[in-house]
Formats: sequence, structure tokens, C-alpha cells
Amino acid sequence: MRNTNQHTGTPYAATGAWLQGDAVGHRSFFTFATQRPFTLDSGASLRDVTLAYETWGTLNADQSNAILICHAWTGDSHVAGEAEHGHPTPGWWEGVVGPGQAVDTNKYFVVCSNVLGGCQGSTGPASPHPDDGAPYALRFPAVTVRDMVRAQAWLTDSLGIKAWHSVIGGSMGGMQVLEWAITYPQRVKSIVPIATCIESSAQQIAWGAIGRRALLMDPLWNNGDYYGAAPDQGPWHGLAIARMIAQVTFRTDNRFNEKFGREQCDTNFHSDGVDLFDRFEVENYLEYHGDKLIRRFDANSYLYIGKAMDLHDVGRGRGGVGRAMSRITVPTLTLGIDSDILYPAYQQELLHESVRGRHSLTKYTQISSPEGHDGFLIETTKISVEISRFLLDLQEAFN
Amino acid sequence: MRNTNQHTGTPYAATGAWLQGDAVGHRSFFTFATQRPFTLDSGASLRDVTLAYETWGTLNADQSNAILICHAWTGDSHVAGEAEHGHPTPGWWEGVVGPGQAVDTNKYFVVCSNVLGGCQGSTGPASPHPDDGAPYALRFPAVTVRDMVRAQAWLTDSLGIKAWHSVIGGSMGGMQVLEWAITYPQRVKSIVPIATCIESSAQQIAWGAIGRRALLMDPLWNNGDYYGAAPDQGPWHGLAIARMIAQVTFRTDNRFNEKFGREQCDTNFHSDGVDLFDRFEVENYLEYHGDKLIRRFDANSYLYIGKAMDLHDVGRGRGGVGRAMSRITVPTLTLGIDSDILYPAYQQELLHESVRGRHSLTKYTQISSPEGHDGFLIETTKISVEISRFLLDLQEAFN
Repeated sequence: MRNTNQHTGTPYAATGAWLQGDAVGHRSFFTFATQRPFTLDSGASLRDVTLAYETWGTLNADQSNAILICHAWTGDSHVAGEAEHGHPTPGWWEGVVGPGQAVDTNKYFVVCSNVLGGCQGSTGPASPHPDDGAPYALRFPAVTVRDMVRAQAWLTDSLGIKAWHSVIGGSMGGMQVLEWAITYPQRVKSIVPIATCIESSAQQIAWGAIGRRALLMDPLWNNGDYYGAAPDQGPWHGLAIARMIAQVTFRTDNRFNEKFGREQCDTNFHSDGVDLFDRFEVENYLEYHGDKLIRRFDANSYLYIGKAMDLHDVGRGRGGVGRAMSRITVPTLTLGIDSDILYPAYQQELLHESVRGRHSLTKYTQISSPEGHDGFLIETTKISVEISRFLLDLQEAFN
Repeated sequence: MRNTNQHTGTPYAATGAWLQGDAVGHRSFFTFATQRPFTLDSGASLRDVTLAYETWGTLNADQSNAILICHAWTGDSHVAGEAEHGHPTPGWWEGVVGPGQAVDTNKYFVVCSNVLGGCQGSTGPASPHPDDGAPYALRFPAVTVRDMVRAQAWLTDSLGIKAWHSVIGGSMGGMQVLEWAITYPQRVKSIVPIATCIESSAQQIAWGAIGRRALLMDPLWNNGDYYGAAPDQGPWHGLAIARMIAQVTFRTDNRFNEKFGREQCDTNFHSDGVDLFDRFEVENYLEYHGDKLIRRFDANSYLYIGKAMDLHDVGRGRGGVGRAMSRITVPTLTLGIDSDILYPAYQQELLHESVRGRHSLTKYTQISSPEGHDGFLIETTKISVEISRFLLDLQEAFN
């Protein structure tokens, strides 16, 4: 194959460094469902489930200052803080969460856990099956966003937290936020869903499903059984292609034009750029992101979590989205990014419409940004302004 | 691999039915570059180049009634007419071209040729190399939209047509329309570019490149050498995935929601739809389109033509798009589809701005349609109204 990704780093599966129980950085691990199996929406159940989580700040005496942050598709528990072993980059929401930040860790006890099905310390397809110690691989059952949230509820119990002051998250994090408020209305005092939706649209499903299909086509995916493979023998091409599809939907046409335009790279000068395999800069950028992902993420986790997002529908088994959303009566700050092509503004408007008027602090703000869906990670200043104000209003209202 | 396309029909490459020189239907074949090689933008040259074309109507004595239709990515010369051997479906622009239609074949002599690099009768990677009679495969040189148009110019000579009354096309057809007007300003009396652009954007390149990469990953693509393979041994999965990516960009979020919503199909009832491999209806639809394409299209042609679109830039070697477009002084009817996410309205506006004011009949109309980019094929009534009026205005102006 010509001019496809030349992966230079060590793929995730070959590092073995971030698997369950590997106590690195300042992460903690909570293992539950050892005595009692954890039953999933699919009907399957799991034993010995572990969630990896991090905390910042101190829980106060009346347990009223706890904030849960929920991460997106390929995120992890490392919301804030420096790069460390197992977390090769600084926190993914530096600028929003930290001492003196909008989610002020001097004031709030902040928690984030890696989702069930993930690969950054929590139980997922790369984890050892309790029966034989070999990775679950495709033996891992399908998980839903609700399953992720119910696992977090067990963690919440273990931390002695009765109710979250706020549950905050973007994209798939926002899906968890909604499920928290609907499944556990008594345990959530406010929510901040960002760049998310009440149910995944057909187009969102299409993008997710095509990416998964590309990954399945990689012969080195080997029906999910690649954990023992040599570093260069995993489904890295497939995972990178899936990621490249996602990456386009995370950004915008305008931003791509500004950043890359029609610049070409490593052009065969004989052909003046007219060659089947010459690349444009935008391809180089997408490859870079594909390549970056394979070094930090398990391909099977990518499949399972992607499917969980496709299955996201707060109305499933609850008489429809309207009835489900009517359970949300707490203050709800909905944030959308105006240029988001993956979770378009109309989805945030629908979300807001379905909770509107149930609390005086419930509010929708559209953030103006050229960054597209990734704006929820990039526009930390604009997001901080909104979250700060909301948390301040809550404080006044609750006191 | 589970639940990926189960291809039921006979793949294109196995039929061998539509290759060069196979005189089926009412197509004609024009072979040029037998004595003199045809030099391409890449610097490579081809011998024995054939274009397959169809004509409708009769060329009048002063050759003033000839209209050229240019087809899009996976289109062919069969613009109008019934299904026939080699053309398993009716013309792709029935409702726009035909007796009594907007492009009235009782009045105009209408021509459409399969593009150079194609696989519906014209010379492309599936054609026999003159040296050894084996398919070119990757020995085929990269082609550009300009190369396609220069090949059509040789065909135009052979038909005895000095100038086209109009050159009309959508998407990649529109790219050819622009190249015709810029390369041969004396041979084109008016143009109708539809849902197209003056240069491909970074996002358009990204979608094209990712699709190609998926195709290259299919081990059965075999570095482009799959022509002798058994019908079930070609790169059909890869081609189908590439097509699925394109198909999402051809439609819209709204349309997908209306048509499919969150309907699931062939759900494993044990899991209540919560299974890694259960499918949604939108996936079924995309698979159907992927499957349909592999039965009628050569995978390598898909690569070459896709690359030609990425390379489309009317300004290349001409001092930029502004200078290139300034050569267009003929009446230009630009049509865009308001819901097009692949060739957004702003591209048509840019196109129109760059020709505006040079002729009194030059005009831009945005067609309102929920169909997205595919609107250029689907909205035949709205497109017919605009083209009819334009051709009528031309008639008055030219007489």
C-alpha cells in the first residue's frame, strides 16, 4: 500500500501500559461488581468491573461541592493536570478545570472516570476476562451510555457522594450528562450538556458506522483478536481511517480551508502534483491525527464506544425522548457550537426546548467559534465564561 | 468480518461487459491518439485512447444546436433513454434531457461521453494496455479534469462541431463545464455549471482521500491488480466503504432523519438492538448504495476519477482562479442546491461572483431542495425550469 499512514510510534495495544489496575499517575481504581454482577442494557453482565478515575480538590463536609466531568469518545479521566506516565498529554480540559478555573478545584471536588468500555484504566475489551485472564476482545458485551452512567453511579456510592452539584460534559460526555439527570434525578442538582444531543441522528450513526466498518476491514483487526500481535501487526490502518472520518466531522470546511487550503506535500516534482498518490496537506493532517490515536487508544474500545454513541437515545424504553427529558427539572445550561457540523445547533436547541421553563436558571447559549465540534475542547475561554456564570448563579440560588 | 456488505450481484470487473470497444446499446466509440500520443497534465501520455459517447437528436446544418452534457464521478454517457445492455438503469438525467424536455433532443443535438479514466466504455485503468493487452491497472497515469476535457475536444473535432451551444453538467460535470469555457473560450457559447466549484476545498479533498484510503486498505485491491480475480475476490468491501463515505456527503442530515431516523434492521431480539453488530436502517441504505456501485463500477476508475476531482483547480498554471475565471465571458447559468453540504452554496456564489457582469444572461440561482448534493440529479423539475428559461433566453439573444 502506498502513501498510507506510516506509523512511527508504539501502538496502544503494544504498550500494555494503561491497562486495568496499572496504578500510574494520580489515578485511582474502583473495582465493583465482584460479588454482584453488573448487568448491562444488552442483557449481558460483567464481573470484576473496574473504573479508573481521578479527583481534584476536597469533598466538603456536607458533600455539596462534588462535580462530575464526563469525557468524550477517546477521552479519559485526565481532565486536568500535567502529562504523566499513562497520560502523555496534559489534561484535555485544561483552561476549564483547575485551581482558580471555571470549575475551580480549590472550591469543588471534581471527579472524572474513564468510561466503561474504555481503555484508559477502566474495564473494556482490552481488559482481561476474569475467566481466563486473556483480553475480552469481542467477548466484551456491547455497552450503552446508560451502562457507562450506571457504572459511574456505583463509583459515586463508593465516594460517599449522594448528589452531584453538577454533571458536565461535551459530545459523548454530554450524552452521559443527560442520562445522569434522567436516570438519577435525585442525585444531580444541575447539568451542563455541551455539543451533544438527546438522540443520535441518522447522519451521526452513518459516520460512526462507516468508520467502524473501515476498522473491521483491516485484516490485522483479526476479528478483534490482535492483542498478542507485534507492534506493527495491529489494525492501525483501519483505526486511523476511522479516526480520519471522525476528524473531518469534528472540524469545519472553513477551518480546513484556512489551515490547509489546497497546499500539497511531498509532491513528486516530475508530475507537478498530478499523481494518484501525491498528498495534500489536509491529508497529512488527518494522517497525523489517525497516527496519534493509534498510539493511545485501543481499536476495540473505539468500536464499542462508537456503537454506544450510535445507540444513544434518551427516549429508549422510556416512552420517547419527550417523556424522558421531562424528568429533567434541575438547572440545565446547554451549550452548543455554532459551526458544529456533527452535532449541529438544532440538536442543542431541541435539547434546550425539551427542558426549557422547568427552572429559572435553565439556559441555552450558542458559542460562536470557527472550530466546529472540536470547539467544545478548544474554546475553553468562552466555555469557561458560561460555566463560571452558571455555577455562580447556582450558588446564589442554592444558598 | 461480520455484518459488512454481503454483495449479491456480479461485481463490475467480473462482468467484463462494459469495457472499451464493446458496442452495446446505442453508444458509439471514438478512438483517437492512435497516431499521435495524447499527453496528459501529469506529463505522461496515452496511445489508442477511446471515448464512449452517446448522441441524441440531429446536428443542424450550421452546427449551432450542439449541447454537451458532462457527467459526474460515477456517471456515464447514458444521460437519457431506457435501460439497455451495458446500462442497467435508465438515463441518469431523464426528466432534463429528452424529446420535449428542457434539453430538448427534438431541437438540440446532445452529446455525452464517458470521461477519460472511466470504466463505461472509455479508456481507463480497466482498459487493455496497448503494449500487452493486459489491464492498465496502476500503470494508468493520473488524469485531471482538464485531461478529460481535452479528450472531449478531440471527440468534438471528430463530430464536426466547431462550438457547443452550451456545455452543461453537475458536480464533476460542472468542473468539466468550467474547464471547457476556460480552455476553449471560442468553442463554447454558453455554460451551465451546477453544484460544483472553481477549486476543490480542503474538506472535499479530505472526504475523497479518506475514501480512497479505505479502498487501498482492502487486501483484495492488491495494489490495483485484481482484474483477473474471481468475482468474490475483488476490493468490493473497500470500494463500498469509499462509496458509503461519499453517499453521506451527497445527502443531508435532515433527509437521513426523515428517511431513516433511528430505525434498526435485522436486530438481534435477545439484545433489544444493543449489540456491537446490529445495524440501523441508515447503514442498510448505505450498504445498498455501496453494493450497487461495485456492480457497475471499476474500483481503480473510482480512485483515478476521485483524484482528478481533488486536483480540480481552474487556477492551476493560469495565475490563480481569478485570472482563469476572467476568461469566461459567455452566458453562464450557475445553479446550486441550498442544502448541499459537499459543494456548499458559497462555492456556487464564488463561481458566480467570478463571472458576474460579463454577460447580461449570466445568472445564479439557488435551488431549494432537501436532497443535498444529490439534488442536482433528483430535482429534475426545478433544474429543468432554470435550464429551459436559460436556453430560451440564449435563443433570443443569439438570433
